Amino acid sequence: MHCWQLLHTQNIVWIYVGLFTWCTFFCDSTQIQFANTEDKQEFSKYPTKAGRRSLSRSISQSSTDSYSSAASYTDSSDDETSPRDKAQVNTHGSSDFCVKNIKQAEFGRREIEIAEQDMSALISLRKRAQGEKPLAGAKIVGCTHITAQTAVLIETLVALGAQCRWTACNIYSTQNEVAAALAETGVPVFAWKGESEDDFWWCIDRCVNTEGWQANMILDDGGDLTHWVYKKYPSVFKKVRGIVEESVTGVHRLYQLSKAGKLCVPAMNVNDSVTKQKFDNLYCCRESILDGLKRTTDIMFGGKQVVVCGYGEVGKGCCTALKALGAIVCITEIDPICALQACMDGFRVVKLSEVIRQMDVVITCTGNKNVVTREQLDRMKNGCIVCNMGHSNTEIDVASLRSPELTWERVRSQVDHIIWPDGKRVVLLAEGRLLNLSCSTVPTFVLSITATTQALALIELFNAPEGRYKQDVYLLPKKMDTGMEWLSYMQTC
Amino acid sequence: MHCWQLLHTQNIVWIYVGLFTWCTFFCDSTQIQFANTEDKQEFSKYPTKAGRRSLSRSISQSSTDSYSSAASYTDSSDDETSPRDKAQVNTHGSSDFCVKNIKQAEFGRREIEIAEQDMSALISLRKRAQGEKPLAGAKIVGCTHITAQTAVLIETLVALGAQCRWTACNIYSTQNEVAAALAETGVPVFAWKGESEDDFWWCIDRCVNTEGWQANMILDDGGDLTHWVYKKYPSVFKKVRGIVEESVTGVHRLYQLSKAGKLCVPAMNVNDSVTKQKFDNLYCCRESILDGLKRTTDIMFGGKQVVVCGYGEVGKGCCTALKALGAIVCITEIDPICALQACMDGFRVVKLSEVIRQMDVVITCTGNKNVVTREQLDRMKNGCIVCNMGHSNTEIDVASLRSPELTWERVRSQVDHIIWPDGKRVVLLAEGRLLNLSCSTVPTFVLSITATTQALALIELFNAPEGRYKQDVYLLPKKMDTGMEWLSYMQTC
Amino acid sequence: MHCWQLLHTQNIVWIYVGLFTWCTFFCDSTQIQFANTEDKQEFSKYPTKAGRRSLSRSISQSSTDSYSSAASYTDSSDDETSPRDKAQVNTHGSSDFCVKNIKQAEFGRREIEIAEQDMSALISLRKRAQGEKPLAGAKIVGCTHITAQTAVLIETLVALGAQCRWTACNIYSTQNEVAAALAETGVPVFAWKGESEDDFWWCIDRCVNTEGWQANMILDDGGDLTHWVYKKYPSVFKKVRGIVEESVTGVHRLYQLSKAGKLCVPAMNVNDSVTKQKFDNLYCCRESILDGLKRTTDIMFGGKQVVVCGYGEVGKGCCTALKALGAIVCITEIDPICALQACMDGFRVVKLSEVIRQMDVVITCTGNKNVVTREQLDRMKNGCIVCNMGHSNTEIDVASLRSPELTWERVRSQVDHIIWPDGKRVVLLAEGRLLNLSCSTVPTFVLSITATTQALALIELFNAPEGRYKQDVYLLPKKMDTGMEWLSYMQTC
Amino acid sequence: MHCWQLLHTQNIVWIYVGLFTWCTFFCDSTQIQFANTEDKQEFSKYPTKAGRRSLSRSISQSSTDSYSSAASYTDSSDDETSPRDKAQVNTHGSSDFCVKNIKQAEFGRREIEIAEQDMSALISLRKRAQGEKPLAGAKIVGCTHITAQTAVLIETLVALGAQCRWTACNIYSTQNEVAAALAETGVPVFAWKGESEDDFWWCIDRCVNTEGWQANMILDDGGDLTHWVYKKYPSVFKKVRGIVEESVTGVHRLYQLSKAGKLCVPAMNVNDSVTKQKFDNLYCCRESILDGLKRTTDIMFGGKQVVVCGYGEVGKGCCTALKALGAIVCITEIDPICALQACMDGFRVVKLSEVIRQMDVVITCTGNKNVVTREQLDRMKNGCIVCNMGHSNTEIDVASLRSPELTWERVRSQVDHIIWPDGKRVVLLAEGRLLNLSCSTVPTFVLSITATTQALALIELFNAPEGRYKQDVYLLPKKMDTGMEWLSYMQTC
Repeated sequence: MHCWQLLHTQNIVWIYVGLFTWCTFFCDSTQIQFANTEDKQEFSKYPTKAGRRSLSRSISQSSTDSYSSAASYTDSSDDETSPRDKAQVNTHGSSDFCVKNIKQAEFGRREIEIAEQDMSALISLRKRAQGEKPLAGAKIVGCTHITAQTAVLIETLVALGAQCRWTACNIYSTQNEVAAALAETGVPVFAWKGESEDDFWWCIDRCVNTEGWQANMILDDGGDLTHWVYKKYPSVFKKVRGIVEESVTGVHRLYQLSKAGKLCVPAMNVNDSVTKQKFDNLYCCRESILDGLKRTTDIMFGGKQVVVCGYGEVGKGCCTALKALGAIVCITEIDPICALQACMDGFRVVKLSEVIRQMDVVITCTGNKNVVTREQLDRMKNGCIVCNMGHSNTEIDVASLRSPELTWERVRSQVDHIIWPDGKRVVLLAEGRLLNLSCSTVPTFVLSITATTQALALIELFNAPEGRYKQDVYLLPKKMDTGMEWLSYMQTC
Repeated sequence: MHCWQLLHTQNIVWIYVGLFTWCTFFCDSTQIQFANTEDKQEFSKYPTKAGRRSLSRSISQSSTDSYSSAASYTDSSDDETSPRDKAQVNTHGSSDFCVKNIKQAEFGRREIEIAEQDMSALISLRKRAQGEKPLAGAKIVGCTHITAQTAVLIETLVALGAQCRWTACNIYSTQNEVAAALAETGVPVFAWKGESEDDFWWCIDRCVNTEGWQANMILDDGGDLTHWVYKKYPSVFKKVRGIVEESVTGVHRLYQLSKAGKLCVPAMNVNDSVTKQKFDNLYCCRESILDGLKRTTDIMFGGKQVVVCGYGEVGKGCCTALKALGAIVCITEIDPICALQACMDGFRVVKLSEVIRQMDVVITCTGNKNVVTREQLDRMKNGCIVCNMGHSNTEIDVASLRSPELTWERVRSQVDHIIWPDGKRVVLLAEGRLLNLSCSTVPTFVLSITATTQALALIELFNAPEGRYKQDVYLLPKKMDTGMEWLSYMQTC
Repeated sequence: MHCWQLLHTQNIVWIYVGLFTWCTFFCDSTQIQFANTEDKQEFSKYPTKAGRRSLSRSISQSSTDSYSSAASYTDSSDDETSPRDKAQVNTHGSSDFCVKNIKQAEFGRREIEIAEQDMSALISLRKRAQGEKPLAGAKIVGCTHITAQTAVLIETLVALGAQCRWTACNIYSTQNEVAAALAETGVPVFAWKGESEDDFWWCIDRCVNTEGWQANMILDDGGDLTHWVYKKYPSVFKKVRGIVEESVTGVHRLYQLSKAGKLCVPAMNVNDSVTKQKFDNLYCCRESILDGLKRTTDIMFGGKQVVVCGYGEVGKGCCTALKALGAIVCITEIDPICALQACMDGFRVVKLSEVIRQMDVVITCTGNKNVVTREQLDRMKNGCIVCNMGHSNTEIDVASLRSPELTWERVRSQVDHIIWPDGKRVVLLAEGRLLNLSCSTVPTFVLSITATTQALALIELFNAPEGRYKQDVYLLPKKMDTGMEWLSYMQTC
Repeated sequence: MHCWQLLHTQNIVWIYVGLFTWCTFFCDSTQIQFANTEDKQEFSKYPTKAGRRSLSRSISQSSTDSYSSAASYTDSSDDETSPRDKAQVNTHGSSDFCVKNIKQAEFGRREIEIAEQDMSALISLRKRAQGEKPLAGAKIVGCTHITAQTAVLIETLVALGAQCRWTACNIYSTQNEVAAALAETGVPVFAWKGESEDDFWWCIDRCVNTEGWQANMILDDGGDLTHWVYKKYPSVFKKVRGIVEESVTGVHRLYQLSKAGKLCVPAMNVNDSVTKQKFDNLYCCRESILDGLKRTTDIMFGGKQVVVCGYGEVGKGCCTALKALGAIVCITEIDPICALQACMDGFRVVKLSEVIRQMDVVITCTGNKNVVTREQLDRMKNGCIVCNMGHSNTEIDVASLRSPELTWERVRSQVDHIIWPDGKRVVLLAEGRLLNLSCSTVPTFVLSITATTQALALIELFNAPEGRYKQDVYLLPKKMDTGMEWLSYMQTC
């Protein structure tokens, strides 16, 4: 998946580690392993999708102009020239970057400033380190989504003394104006929204392979940058003091390298932390379920009958929010512990088939496949809304709906009406993909937590005494005097 | 104010008339009394506003394409010809209508169908009356906002046997596609988004003044239609069995007419009801505060320090929702009873000045003026969000911010950064106008309640035995066997 | 009604009347009209009841005999001599009182001190008036429940300058130790727990009819004192500046007198107010439903299926609390507005018969009769708990359970098991009387609100300029500069 | 295992140990370690305590003498003869027991029947095992609190085929009537309320050391029984198939034995399970904080300022409940993750010293010592309530309050007023011991979970094939084919 939605999130993965975790994680999906065919397919699919999308936009434009952390503001239609073919120079005379349009820098700057408002942890890190410059001497090559929030991270790294070169980890998620703003301040950025696969690797290469500058730190999100350096410039690792990786996929790759004895520098896994997971799942979903449903359907929550399938962290978040706004929520759950928790939290624990006819909204967050079957879709009442907050796009048996007797009608972006022969409509959101990724925004504050962790991991690895970290994958050390910083942050929040 | 937002704005009065109607209305403000200068000014202001809006849109386009009940989907830039100058014919050969573009009918139809999903009360009214046709013989001339939701009302009236002619009560709120869809099915509609003042009265006139058809019922929202008929076609009233009026303004005018002995037909005030107000305030605001803040700022609610000024129904709704999502909410309140309620509901009751420095969000819902003063704005912390859920646009002293030492920066539609000389930014939403009208949608369900009441009032007036209603203003009779119908509805909801 | 429960039935007064109430009340019953036979029966019934009660105590120190604001601490068995036959003198040499045992004064003093902790409004009133003595010259004769809380009121009146004589409005509710403590400090008190009817009137008489002292103010709760003065000492009214009456019954009598033109002094109705009702119903029941169920049954709320019949203020309070503690709550409601509110608040609105088999707890708060019928009791599951939070004792058809095929087993005080022939047990609390009166305590804070209002009403009537109040029944004037006092109080709470 | 219930008793394993557990526990106290001096002190203290207690009872039937799982119903004053000196025979002619008064059996039976209502898991276990008798041949010697709930356990064991002999694990907690009821049905019980230390060991000895019967299973709570058998009858272990131990203390002892190589039979630790902790902590404390505060102080929660120290599972439970009932809750927390959770859940995170002056209630649940210091106690406002829900009795520095300048006044059972020289009173509950253990009841449902787990552990150990369990301490096996049954159970709950 390479649409912008990927950005925040991709795809929560339920980890049922034998027992159960109370947590889900998200992380980016394994699809982004470019070596396999599936991914190539994804690449080729994109243009179509984008096309369809902009078509629908041309007839239906939002009234609310609501901002989304991962959206590009730019009307892409205004300029069809590839950035690679343009000669651009920033106001300081530098042309060491490749973005859509350097002239959008001012708009992007504003977006970065907005993001800063809600990223106080990073800002306070900046202030604290003003004297020390803990990253003085660090040369960081980064590959992440390029958004206002990551720009705040990058500029924090710079403020801490680092030199940075940056590229996008996703061909669709770049906010062009933000990239321009970064380029304008002198950060070499190579990224734009709507890259081709070739563009993607070209950008990474331009980032790594530059004369007179060699990275000594890597910040990666998905492992593609790491993969490229391994493949093309293995000698770079001689100078690299460490890799910081944020995604499930990337972390998975690092563990594989480590097992195979091929990991040649220390790596920091910033994906597996309680806080990240509490935030990504419980707290974030508590808000995004409301946001996603509201933006797509304008539904009034009060009095609505809702069934939530699965009472893990994501389910708990969804249920808490919906209950609080007056929805009448019941739960399906096969794990007895989670079911008991649901029960103790005041939710009816039911079988989906028994309640499906009465429901106004059906939400899946189980991590399993085919939780909502065609037979159940057949029995839903007219107007029932179906969406997925769980893993990937298989919880609802969407495939079964692509059959000749049913009519699909795209009524808005991310909203399809599936129409039965008798006229009954079921409202399917995001074609069964993750609602929170497709139809709501990720609060800057949540991204702030991730970004702060990344910054701390970079500081730790860069400053660690020789020998503290071996060629292995590490979790962030618990103590990093971060505790107190956090606390002080929170007291201001 | 004549933008669509006005629609639900204003003002709501609690009336516990011993009876209750089921409905809520919102209605227009007294500003829409076209006789005075202020309104004329408003008219002239519009083009500018619209211009600014579409400008901002051209650089920032929404990712979410979120739908808003009162927004027009149409890109107005595509066709600058006035509808009055176009010759349009629907597929049935009729040209008795005037809309932006009859070809948009199909899109509008879809919007109507979506709206129907959440207006089950009207739909069940349709079904129930299929045999009886309680409005057979009714000739209704209507003047309301023209949106998907009112279309469902109009088509319900038709299904109940009525003939309808319709025009818009607001120059900006018409959904062009919906108007087209209505026109396509044969309802003579005269309305488009962005009418001039002259257009406005021309449309009303075309509605009323048609050969071979004379209205015997009036459904009005704001009183302009009624006013026009009084002024131009007083003879129409000889046949009119009644007026149903939804807005505060319109109701106010009717009571004035009644006092002056000039009301020559019975009128039904469907504005003043407990339910309306519960819905417009408590239940609706409980959802729209979240929606409005999220769409404009993407703020994460969890852990945010919020002060809500005023603990009436609106304040209660806001507080309930924000608290439920993890915000740390405190209250300012001068009425001791409301303050005691806040206290008993677990909110700290504070003085605004004492807490202003710590707040992340400041929300006004008092109904008073200058609740948030310039001095308090000066003391807010960087990034503080300020918005108004209360009455009109005077709760926050926005005027005081329009001074030379402060810089205004429009960062998104409805979002301004006010920048102090030291760089501090305060985030002002909707320039201090009502957040819920400007930045969030009204759930169809709420509109459904209003619309159902209007339909019931029309049925009641049209079928009442001669003499039951005099030339006076009435509230809906409590009994209309609606109680049970409602109940059964609710049990399905 | 003369059981101690009466104490908190009535009483709290909201100062801000005149607006509107969303509230239902419950209140004490009109049984206390001594003229009719039923009441006489009540009197004669008491000894039996008391007997049964102390018998049951001898085998089971019930859980529900837990401290209650209206309970006597004293083991009544220790001394069978009637107080009327004892000669007692306090340490100051006075014998102008009649209590159970003056030696219990110290214990009672401690209880009063405990009560003072949570009656800050009265205490602050004391402080404020230290200089002014607004009741200097007032001679107040009072007839209320005699508890630690009313003692704080009485001592506040004394601190404000008044002389007081006091008697009990209920034959069972007197806390003997508190009466002793009052007597010890010099307040002539005539009251003990377990008075006979003859004692009751004797005490009132001793209070009113004393040489060298004539009341000029009356504070009554139930109207018995007022009744007695009317009947026996009508001349007293020549000096009386006003009556303050707290109970529904008493207020009802006053209005009757007023209608009949027989009211010869101004009277203040401190019963009918928004605050009283909010407190007595919503806030108080929110806590007492939990307390009452817990003390009687030790039930765990989490996960329990509960149906609450009626969604007025009492029902809202019950539902809020139970839902918050994890119970799965559904509602029955016949008023469509209340039903819609329940729905919007996230509760399933059901028919009792449809859910009765699944319920763990059934709670009535409708104000109607036979809400829970024998047929429904027959269908309850084993162990189902049934109780009443609504009006009087007729909501549950308890009479139908007193039939030969069912066995009653008193398992604890206030807890009966009704056993069906097949062994099924239904747990009936307080024999269907009000749970909150029978099985939980009234928080001192709530009583504090009542008491403060009474004090303010006395001050107002005593100090009002001649002619402000006629021989009529008044509500407390809204303004009494109490607003700010309240507010300041609340800010400390 | 063999029955469904087991499933959730154990099973969940916290994955993120080492970092932080989201849980705290409480557990039974360590006081009962008879080997050390401190414990001896406890013993010697008891008579005094009991004395003081019954004294206070004679003048004040305390609120806290409400039914509690550990309270005796009987008025101990009625019979001063030691049970050891009485000759009692049950109606079946057996005298193999020693209880306070066998004639109380009928009352105790009723209490057992009440308890059965809320222990459906055990009852269904009984039913299920009616055919199989999985404990046929088991001879269980047990040492637990003797209450209605454990009686249900014991009678379930008997129904499953076991023979049982039982004694009390605590000298004060025995419900005499329940002991009588058990003795009446033929279970040899040796226990009464108010045993001396000598009585305590005499009872254990009578349980173990009986002719013609030798235990092959031990169920212990605290380890005293196990200790005694080790010390006096080590040969018994030759036949014992296993020990089931429920308490922290007992489990600790078993692990010590195991480490020392002295554990000679398998032992099952039924203390350490997620469910137990979720129940004992989160769900149970959510209810008991309200119950404990209400029964001791009758406080109204609405509007009270409360600080909760510690936001682990216990703190979360307390905060949830108090917030829901309208208290204004803030948190102190030193762990940044827990603090962040508090923040995201909408609680102000504060420093205790900064808020201590304003608080109405201070609750500790940290597991640390001296969380509330003397200096903070000095700064509390008059009437502030202080209590402990955390570990042992050291969270509040109670020792510092036992100094000459402060006066202690026992105002009710479990409630002391500490009076400062200036008259300020602080209300200390349970002398700083666990509020939930001292002042509220444990819902039968929670006890049911524990008891079911114990039964399952006994079944598992008794039926395990030779060699499955070594001489070690085990956790209950996770799998026990149980999931679905639980679910069905929950649906009834």
